[in-house]
Amino acid sequence: MSSTSSLKSLSIDNVNPRIKEAKYAVRGLLAIKSEEYRAQLKRGEGKNLPFDTVISANIGNPQQLDQKPITFFRQVASLVENPQLLEHEDVLTNSLGYKSDAINRARWLLSEVHSVGAYSQSMGAPGIRQSVANFIERRDGFPADPSLIYLSAGASAGVNAILSLICATPKTGVLVPIPQYPLYTATLAVLGSTCVPYYLDEEKAWGTNMESIKTSYLNAKQVGIDTRAIAIINPGNPTGSSLKPEEVKEVIKFAAEEKLVVIADEVYQTNVFIGEFYSFKKGLRELQKEEPGKYDNVELVSMHSVSKGMVGECGHRGGYYELVGFDPKVIDELYKFVSIQLCPPVIGQCIVECMVNPPVEGDPSYELYKKEYDGVYNGLRERANALYKAFEEMEGVHCQPPSGSMYLFPTITLPQKAIEAAKEAGYAPDEFYCLKLLDATGVCVVPGSGFGQKEGTLHFRTTFLAPGTEWTGRIVKFHKEFMDQYR
Amino acid sequence: MSSTSSLKSLSIDNVNPRIKEAKYAVRGLLAIKSEEYRAQLKRGEGKNLPFDTVISANIGNPQQLDQKPITFFRQVASLVENPQLLEHEDVLTNSLGYKSDAINRARWLLSEVHSVGAYSQSMGAPGIRQSVANFIERRDGFPADPSLIYLSAGASAGVNAILSLICATPKTGVLVPIPQYPLYTATLAVLGSTCVPYYLDEEKAWGTNMESIKTSYLNAKQVGIDTRAIAIINPGNPTGSSLKPEEVKEVIKFAAEEKLVVIADEVYQTNVFIGEFYSFKKGLRELQKEEPGKYDNVELVSMHSVSKGMVGECGHRGGYYELVGFDPKVIDELYKFVSIQLCPPVIGQCIVECMVNPPVEGDPSYELYKKEYDGVYNGLRERANALYKAFEEMEGVHCQPPSGSMYLFPTITLPQKAIEAAKEAGYAPDEFYCLKLLDATGVCVVPGSGFGQKEGTLHFRTTFLAPGTEWTGRIVKFHKEFMDQYR
Repeated sequence: MSSTSSLKSLSIDNVNPRIKEAKYAVRGLLAIKSEEYRAQLKRGEGKNLPFDTVISANIGNPQQLDQKPITFFRQVASLVENPQLLEHEDVLTNSLGYKSDAINRARWLLSEVHSVGAYSQSMGAPGIRQSVANFIERRDGFPADPSLIYLSAGASAGVNAILSLICATPKTGVLVPIPQYPLYTATLAVLGSTCVPYYLDEEKAWGTNMESIKTSYLNAKQVGIDTRAIAIINPGNPTGSSLKPEEVKEVIKFAAEEKLVVIADEVYQTNVFIGEFYSFKKGLRELQKEEPGKYDNVELVSMHSVSKGMVGECGHRGGYYELVGFDPKVIDELYKFVSIQLCPPVIGQCIVECMVNPPVEGDPSYELYKKEYDGVYNGLRERANALYKAFEEMEGVHCQPPSGSMYLFPTITLPQKAIEAAKEAGYAPDEFYCLKLLDATGVCVVPGSGFGQKEGTLHFRTTFLAPGTEWTGRIVKFHKEFMDQYR
Repeated sequence: MSSTSSLKSLSIDNVNPRIKEAKYAVRGLLAIKSEEYRAQLKRGEGKNLPFDTVISANIGNPQQLDQKPITFFRQVASLVENPQLLEHEDVLTNSLGYKSDAINRARWLLSEVHSVGAYSQSMGAPGIRQSVANFIERRDGFPADPSLIYLSAGASAGVNAILSLICATPKTGVLVPIPQYPLYTATLAVLGSTCVPYYLDEEKAWGTNMESIKTSYLNAKQVGIDTRAIAIINPGNPTGSSLKPEEVKEVIKFAAEEKLVVIADEVYQTNVFIGEFYSFKKGLRELQKEEPGKYDNVELVSMHSVSKGMVGECGHRGGYYELVGFDPKVIDELYKFVSIQLCPPVIGQCIVECMVNPPVEGDPSYELYKKEYDGVYNGLRERANALYKAFEEMEGVHCQPPSGSMYLFPTITLPQKAIEAAKEAGYAPDEFYCLKLLDATGVCVVPGSGFGQKEGTLHFRTTFLAPGTEWTGRIVKFHKEFMDQYR
């Protein structure tokens, strides 16, 4: 074995096998290849490439694709980064377009965090956590407790913390939707616990299917898996779904019966195009009101983030999670775990503050905020629908209508010859398709196998963040040629 | 067992036992109590407390203790946060004190990252990694490869990534200095691998003792531990030591012989008061020059951070680590691991850029930068020496001269009666002493037991970041009274 014969400490044969097992396709082979194309074009060496730009539709990275940051947020951020600017209020307002509410918010934030260069409390600055609690209360109509709100470096850090807490042994199981954002399966692999997959119902707009959840749970129980939690992504990633209140409540009821922590990944809560967002917290509180005492055992952790929605500030790594119904001793362990990594980025915490407490009607910055916010929302919806229509017209492609989040996840039916060509090239068929798409068009999407899919089905995930529709045309043209080639 | 009888999924009996085992005193009981005191005082409810301010000397958090951020860094940060400001270059320069180099740096950074709200590559923006490589080359006189530099959310995230990669099984061991910053033992506990402690030599200014390292290594080997790495913190935390070139080289030689990854935690590299900082990278390259071929197997990872030094921007969570000598396949696994958490905070990456590429002589911002930088450095050195002198005059206290980092770690000899009183109260003696100190003075330090210490010895760690000397007086007075009480 090379681990013993090598002169080095580490080799592929002896590094942490749990990391080796983890898969994270969103930033995998295709993403790396697309970055190489981009670098090639930037160096002016891409003359022979059949495209002149790379479209990174593989990842929900709004501002890389020219979604403009919200002015109010960035004005506040600039002031807390350089508090010396606050000594020139007249210049800020008269020459630089800052309104008094942005200036006041920055002053307030500085009084809360002292300096954005200082560590905050490990769960985040108390004043910002209070703002989050107020936001949740306004959203749901039920109170929230700031001492149970943890700010985090994006929702990913929250998922990592919660799964780390739950995953006690290899037999510990967590129910994860398939398809899913691979953070869940990857983190479970790294933690050495068991993913208990449950399939979403493609034909019902990728909704949850309680039968499928129950069957998965029972099957896992039969082979000795101690399932302790269920993860739900709503609105869905990669599916673009948006759950109805009944679906949310059904999941909570099941969690109450089987004593499962509900992990509600709600980072796309403002990206909803059909119906309205209905939070798991609201679902739980309504159930508790309907049948007092019956759901008091439910443990719920609900994640949100500045990365998505009309905010799109993923580079700032800001987010929060709210804990409901957890044992205080369990929370002490969670606190210790997050404190080892000191604190979430403080400027990211400030962006969380702006997100949960934006300008409201009557505030000087409101008009611009509203215009920017609605502009992003409408742009996303229009592009989602345009892309959906294009997919529906493509041979062998079928797509659920865009309901939420930033993604479409069409199913593709490929000719047998294409499947054979993929096998020959050493790729899964959907991976092969996505690689060919990238090579031909510069459009980078992620094969369905990166998220999980029912055996025998093929999909890919694409964002609809990239501006314009020209790149949609590239996909349509490629698809036709691909189908013609392998028909 | 409450885990089965409870109606909840999670209880203290069934959460991840590796998290329960982890200890992280820096943000533990004392820190929490000090925060409660601070909140009490803020609410105006602290009339009965025997102090009017809380001094958080428990954690290296410079800007919480009024270390001023460096103006150039924050000007750049404000511009990349709000690029609209760049449309008003005249206002910036004529009314707001921005120099052209700050403006140019911001423009360059924006061209590299597109937006600080966008995800970067998982290892950080390429241009900034190139700047880090240039910095290392200037520092050491040997080249560095930007493709082997990973930006990270502070050094802590780097330590977590590297240890996660190394820790394959419970029998995997990592040599960790005692005393140590508890990130190492806590992370090893969470990963379920084994800490192989080696004692630093207090009487030799807390230097490394090769005999102690070898003995620990061999003892671990005898009980079946497969030690794969050695961690060194230089300058030292909590010890305040600064290693000599010979000490650095001895460690590398040992690592080469025993095939150990060298984890060099060098976040305090600019906090050096005696001698000069000598990096592990330089030590390795010099050894390789002296005896060609002999040290080519060495794997070294060297961490740095924006959190400490004269920068002190810990709230921004910026840092980097350089990989030397690692197998590319091993690096692929590391890349996948870090990509699961997407990317380090982009504004933190921009602060890394400023740190490694600050204004130089002739640049418009240089004069102020130099003044600010030197002011912080001299202030730290003065306070370190004042505190050291105060300790040396205290009964039963002995302290090594401040050589580096931000800490002093005096040894304390307590009267038998104090040790008995501690036992009665259910605390370790040093913990008891630190609690009494906090209750009496509002000064929060960390007991030596939080870092590890030789059995039978007692210490505490204090930063010397808090401005002024009044708080030093509080410690002196408390100590005298404590000794009188328990003598």
